[in-house]
Amino acid sequence: MKYVFFLLYGAFTLQLTSQTDTEVIRNIYSYSLSNGQSYQWLDHLSNQIGSRLSGSLGAERAVAYTKEELQKLGLDKVWLQPVMVPKWVRGNPEFAYIETAPGETLSVNICALGGSVSTPLQGLKAQVVEVQGLDELELLGRENIAGKIVFFNRPMDETLIHTFRAYGGCVDQRGSGAKEAIKYGAVGVVVRSMNLRLDDFPHTGSTNYGDTPVNKRIPAAAISTNHAELLSSMLKMDKNLKFYFKQNCRQLPDVQSYNVIGEIKGTEFPNEIIVVGGHLDSWDLGDGSHDDGAGIVQSMEVLRILKDLNYSPKRTIRVVLFANEENGLRGGTKYAEEAKLNKEKHFFALESDAGGFTPRGFSFDTSEKEFKTIKKFENLFIKYGMDNFFIGGSGADIGPLKNGEVILAGLRPDTQRYFDYHHAASDTFDKINKRELELGAAAMTALVYLLDNYKL
Amino acid sequence: MKYVFFLLYGAFTLQLTSQTDTEVIRNIYSYSLSNGQSYQWLDHLSNQIGSRLSGSLGAERAVAYTKEELQKLGLDKVWLQPVMVPKWVRGNPEFAYIETAPGETLSVNICALGGSVSTPLQGLKAQVVEVQGLDELELLGRENIAGKIVFFNRPMDETLIHTFRAYGGCVDQRGSGAKEAIKYGAVGVVVRSMNLRLDDFPHTGSTNYGDTPVNKRIPAAAISTNHAELLSSMLKMDKNLKFYFKQNCRQLPDVQSYNVIGEIKGTEFPNEIIVVGGHLDSWDLGDGSHDDGAGIVQSMEVLRILKDLNYSPKRTIRVVLFANEENGLRGGTKYAEEAKLNKEKHFFALESDAGGFTPRGFSFDTSEKEFKTIKKFENLFIKYGMDNFFIGGSGADIGPLKNGEVILAGLRPDTQRYFDYHHAASDTFDKINKRELELGAAAMTALVYLLDNYKL
Repeated sequence: MKYVFFLLYGAFTLQLTSQTDTEVIRNIYSYSLSNGQSYQWLDHLSNQIGSRLSGSLGAERAVAYTKEELQKLGLDKVWLQPVMVPKWVRGNPEFAYIETAPGETLSVNICALGGSVSTPLQGLKAQVVEVQGLDELELLGRENIAGKIVFFNRPMDETLIHTFRAYGGCVDQRGSGAKEAIKYGAVGVVVRSMNLRLDDFPHTGSTNYGDTPVNKRIPAAAISTNHAELLSSMLKMDKNLKFYFKQNCRQLPDVQSYNVIGEIKGTEFPNEIIVVGGHLDSWDLGDGSHDDGAGIVQSMEVLRILKDLNYSPKRTIRVVLFANEENGLRGGTKYAEEAKLNKEKHFFALESDAGGFTPRGFSFDTSEKEFKTIKKFENLFIKYGMDNFFIGGSGADIGPLKNGEVILAGLRPDTQRYFDYHHAASDTFDKINKRELELGAAAMTALVYLLDNYKL
Repeated sequence: MKYVFFLLYGAFTLQLTSQTDTEVIRNIYSYSLSNGQSYQWLDHLSNQIGSRLSGSLGAERAVAYTKEELQKLGLDKVWLQPVMVPKWVRGNPEFAYIETAPGETLSVNICALGGSVSTPLQGLKAQVVEVQGLDELELLGRENIAGKIVFFNRPMDETLIHTFRAYGGCVDQRGSGAKEAIKYGAVGVVVRSMNLRLDDFPHTGSTNYGDTPVNKRIPAAAISTNHAELLSSMLKMDKNLKFYFKQNCRQLPDVQSYNVIGEIKGTEFPNEIIVVGGHLDSWDLGDGSHDDGAGIVQSMEVLRILKDLNYSPKRTIRVVLFANEENGLRGGTKYAEEAKLNKEKHFFALESDAGGFTPRGFSFDTSEKEFKTIKKFENLFIKYGMDNFFIGGSGADIGPLKNGEVILAGLRPDTQRYFDYHHAASDTFDKINKRELELGAAAMTALVYLLDNYKL
């Protein structure tokens, strides 16, 4: 359908000084939807590179690929910013079963939580104590927990409309379950997957042992929601059943990785920087198409669209593909440190890290006063189905930039499907809808354009 | 996760007279999301019954199944309203290829358009003339068209944000292409599928021969978007290539079918009727999960939720599962005729027929004055991500009820993915997200509740 584009090419140039913001934004959307690159980039990243866990070959290949693609765009500068990242490896696939009597076993789907230690070589078998949350541990006490596997089974609250809130209300079990259970003598932890669906996919994600010495740490796994229900109902029949699991993961020494960065120099205020980005690393089970391949290609697309439409930004516009969001945030931390060291002034930073779904709005982490002005832009997005500008978080990777001056923002897509795929083997390219992805890229480009022209 | 529900059951009862609209709507949403039935109903309808083209065994089974399910709900009345429907059958799967030289052929994916005549028994082979729309036929004239197959290849406009508008701007090729091409002596018609994606699925849908005598009608097929691109690019190399297709469809005599209807009698105004519905028939290629299985189960869910929450409606609330929307609208027409005959007063009618995606709003077909009052309800939906009440169409099946008095409305879900599946073999249950479906059912229930309490 290229002919449509070539026919209209003239209309797509942003140079015409007579163009209103409305017209510019219309051109950005049309270009993204009719001549987008984000979907093809993501196809390569997901299907030719695949998962990109920090320290993996996939992560390394993703750095090389995205750098090369940014170089093709004819930006003013493309470079790699070195950063040391943790390297945790899953090893051979995990294996687990429920045993109701010797030889009577039922296999269940689990995966090690990121950062977990392995089980002993022969695996770990123990009785199970089911709890609905961390606070139950104290009530049960050491006498009911010591020597057992703690099974955290509080589901995400399905009645919450915004699924990230349901996630926020549940994820302490995954993040701190192992650390807390250790205090009561537990020998392992199994956590119900952070997933609103009942299905067969275990969802990984970091667990954090805090100060617990390495030799005291206990293995921690996620179990699929279907099998969490199964285990729970079997425990009701037989509280003495045993759970066996074997995992082979380990933490290796940190390795070298990179934030991938490209920029278009500003023509009027080159020292004021606008950042747009996402994180290039992903968990290892799927191919990370939604988390956060989508944010990566949408961020790259912002610069490509502005460049292709011959837009000369007033401020410097920089894309940053952050390393290691999932299990360390080293990329975001490093980028902010270097920015401070180099006395760079960041004016605005925008992250996409909530999946490549239909965009619904932007959340802003800025002063009430600033937000009041920015909120006026909301009207420009209504015809594109984006009508929700609100005060809230931005993104994990750009968070460390926060200094009371920089305006931070996050793209907010529809959240209904996100946790079906989040950190699971089901987060794959076939779950991406091309138009939804492109609408997000267009929205980000439009906001960057508006902020570039925004006077404080 | 039933324990959550039983724990909270008391809170879900709508009888408490002290409840505000805000609280009632919160309960409706929570009940739909935590104790929904729509997804399981749709699973059965899609996977155990499958496609439901008018006159087919599937359509008949769907009538029996939904009637039985409505009867289980303990409504005041459930009945079947007889209606004669057309019966068009596809016959054996279609077959088509592009021939560049004798024996040099490339298979392509087509399907007969609904209502089309078959090709001759041995199939039809002819040269192809590609056009971008109906108006090109006159420009080309009979000398360039007679004896050829007309290939309508204008794509949906991907730059339009609302995909139904892109569909509206294109579907004349499918609806009237054959009828118009006949006037210039064409022997067949191939239409690019109404699909914004490039993929391999042909999308069916009705073609309308108008007054053309049966013996003058020419066969009409849809071709997948990938193969439309292929055919077009091959024509650029060789305008003398030939296209072969064979289809085996035919029109049989009308058969008996039914609208499936259930109702809860109103306590204060039993003679004022509120209708909620969708169409039970579907095209024959997929299982019709989005078009319109979703609307069927959401409509049934409205009555189930109100009933389960012990809500006693003031007006009579009726669910109507309409027969034959896709190729005749006989169900909707019949229902409106009977309503008029029986002097029934319809107060409000709401249809869901735009897929089971995240609901974004409602469109209303009513007076400006009425709309101004209804628009005030919009605020109650904002926290559920529904914030778009607007004046527009409602639904095909409830359209015949329009009489200047009844308020008509349509559920408006996100439109980005709809035409990926619409009328194609890819419209299947795995494309349904449970939460998105349930949010739509909740929104419809909430609106019905508000209108039931609405004083003119």
